[in-house]
Amino acid sequence: MKLYQNPKRTTWSELTKRPSIEQNILEEGVRTIMQDVERNSDNALYRYTQLLDGCSLDNLEVTQKELEDATVSEELASAIDKAYANIEKFHRSQLVEEPKIETTPGVTCWRKSVAIEKVGLYIPGGSAPLFSTILMLGIPAKIVGCSEIVLCTPPDTNGNINPAILYTAKRVGITKIFKVGGAQAIGAMTVGTKSIPSVSKIFGPGNQYVTKAKELALEKGVGIDMPAGPSELLIIADASADPEFVAADLLSQAEHGADSQVILVSDSEELIKRTKDAIERQLKELPRKEVAQKALNNSLSVSLENLSACLDFSNAYAPEHLIINTENVNKLASNVINAGSVFLGNYSCESAGDYASGTNHTLPTNGYARNYSGVSIDSFVRKITYQEITADGIRSLGPSIELMAEAEELQAHKNAVSVRLKALNNE
Amino acid sequence: MKLYQNPKRTTWSELTKRPSIEQNILEEGVRTIMQDVERNSDNALYRYTQLLDGCSLDNLEVTQKELEDATVSEELASAIDKAYANIEKFHRSQLVEEPKIETTPGVTCWRKSVAIEKVGLYIPGGSAPLFSTILMLGIPAKIVGCSEIVLCTPPDTNGNINPAILYTAKRVGITKIFKVGGAQAIGAMTVGTKSIPSVSKIFGPGNQYVTKAKELALEKGVGIDMPAGPSELLIIADASADPEFVAADLLSQAEHGADSQVILVSDSEELIKRTKDAIERQLKELPRKEVAQKALNNSLSVSLENLSACLDFSNAYAPEHLIINTENVNKLASNVINAGSVFLGNYSCESAGDYASGTNHTLPTNGYARNYSGVSIDSFVRKITYQEITADGIRSLGPSIELMAEAEELQAHKNAVSVRLKALNNE
Repeated sequence: MKLYQNPKRTTWSELTKRPSIEQNILEEGVRTIMQDVERNSDNALYRYTQLLDGCSLDNLEVTQKELEDATVSEELASAIDKAYANIEKFHRSQLVEEPKIETTPGVTCWRKSVAIEKVGLYIPGGSAPLFSTILMLGIPAKIVGCSEIVLCTPPDTNGNINPAILYTAKRVGITKIFKVGGAQAIGAMTVGTKSIPSVSKIFGPGNQYVTKAKELALEKGVGIDMPAGPSELLIIADASADPEFVAADLLSQAEHGADSQVILVSDSEELIKRTKDAIERQLKELPRKEVAQKALNNSLSVSLENLSACLDFSNAYAPEHLIINTENVNKLASNVINAGSVFLGNYSCESAGDYASGTNHTLPTNGYARNYSGVSIDSFVRKITYQEITADGIRSLGPSIELMAEAEELQAHKNAVSVRLKALNNE
Repeated sequence: MKLYQNPKRTTWSELTKRPSIEQNILEEGVRTIMQDVERNSDNALYRYTQLLDGCSLDNLEVTQKELEDATVSEELASAIDKAYANIEKFHRSQLVEEPKIETTPGVTCWRKSVAIEKVGLYIPGGSAPLFSTILMLGIPAKIVGCSEIVLCTPPDTNGNINPAILYTAKRVGITKIFKVGGAQAIGAMTVGTKSIPSVSKIFGPGNQYVTKAKELALEKGVGIDMPAGPSELLIIADASADPEFVAADLLSQAEHGADSQVILVSDSEELIKRTKDAIERQLKELPRKEVAQKALNNSLSVSLENLSACLDFSNAYAPEHLIINTENVNKLASNVINAGSVFLGNYSCESAGDYASGTNHTLPTNGYARNYSGVSIDSFVRKITYQEITADGIRSLGPSIELMAEAEELQAHKNAVSVRLKALNNE
């Protein structure tokens, strides 16, 4: 972690820039895969699964028996239950019934949240089964009542899906699970194949191929949860913070990937120094220490004159995760402008939100916290507006509409009101 | 309007397809303009304004004096006031304060809506001043408290902006107005120039160059309101509907542009026939009859066996605007799945929502009603999640987090909890 001592504000835009990611070289390859899926349906999926996942499948869909057989240890099942309950409780609290509003006598307007009918969840494969993401995406989809929830995840070389993934999907109530990964999975959910239904919105993390495929899905009219980027954490800590905790939090983010970014901002150079020492100690014990070390090389610590400047720096960076570990968190917390999710105090570690506290872990990275929210109940619905206007309502509001339509030179818009006013006058 | 009598459901996916739009030929030109703006800042803007709008400006920003001088007729001012009040009332009703939720004792989670700091509004030029869109975008931006609201709109050949646009902007409280249109305006708000600040999200309609530029802005990390497409209306009407009203509503949509689409779905062939006659009569009187006629050529009427099938057809089409003009609207209304905005009954014409009833007129077109909502208060905020965990909270939840992190093979995630539990045990 490179240390910047009291960097001038004019340098902040440079300091808060994300490391640039190579792009575009992928596009052609991903486009080819997706076109192949569109043309050759399941055949293309079997072919790519053989080629890229190294397994030959008889069936793309996970069978009822495979689902039934999937188990995890009792302890893990109980941990998943606790996480499930918290995530469900918090996400249910986001359901709101909005009132009908009579904006003018006889003119009533309202909004209604309606579940997106068909959604697709992508869960990456690899050595570690990211079953927590199934909770984060599946629970809100279930709460709002999406009528079709499809899950795609790549199989291992034996054609199996990790039992923790299957168990969690079953626990959430997702039963349409397909052994397909990568760009071909996104392609299948975008256009639909013989086995895999097309969906209206695709959620979930993935490697650069999946990310590019989601961008191309967007071009085809499918919604996506949000643009993807490497995970990131910014911590604001003062002298009251425990350097061991701060170090552990920074490392928990750094282990995600070599391209993760972690930033420590503090008004205390002593805290920065002690955290650095703690990182060195803790790093040695980590199985993913090489990944974490690479991420730390991309990362920075910044000392600033006071906590208010620290928060300004954080708002300029717009972190996905923001931990505020200071003596008095409330004032800083109330002035956060740009962040995905905020963790307050000495005991609110990011891992809690990643797994089990109740908040969603699918959050805007790469500065997108300036203009995107994380996944929530809102991500799985459309808010449809309604209006009902009575004869009195159009009598009262009609002349204003006529005037405005005329001023915009849209005579037929005016006429839609005029024919009604005329009919009412003739009654 | 082509009539389809009881088309089989297997043909619906073909019938509900939008007319395809040519694309991509624009991309290179638009990309060049945006790169030019990035490199040459205001100079590029002056140059394109000369070239494309035919006027040579001394100043890109509308002056205080120009704003002060902008007036509209007293009648129009009063109509705008009424629309303003309704739009403000309805959008304010969308503000919600969500409760803090203790998901587990000692673990508290909540969300807070925070305004996007900098937003840009694009208002097209052309013969008719679309001042109503300033109300629809400016009022919610003001309600949530965006700290910077920038408006770009092209000048006429004399370098002036239509007074109705300036008046409405002033009325809403938008004072940073720039005389720049087209892709160059979107480029300026994306990267920022000497005069025009960069923004985090761009809203507003525009021609195909503006639409393409907004797509490219998205690639650069700027948010946009939603993907654009031609405007569209689907009406479900039964024998109780007044064919004059139905015809007027269809025409009010058809006059928008030759690429607009209007669809009438009914269980009554008689109503379809009488509406067709009324369209012919009304069309003759319209100043924009040629545009409307072209749109009608793209359009269809569909007779189906009953109203429930009509609603199924509408849900398959996912219209931007849906008018339900039937004897009993409630049952149909409650089963709408895919639509941008719904208008109920004989007096709820689309023009009302376009201008003055209170709902927003920036809505998802082109089938995007399946996965996008229209513009609302939500479009101008991020919902940031917060959590605060006490020592007791981490004691109780910590072991579950440790188990889940371990199962995902993320040891540093586990360790962020373990260091805290260890410290608490040592106390």
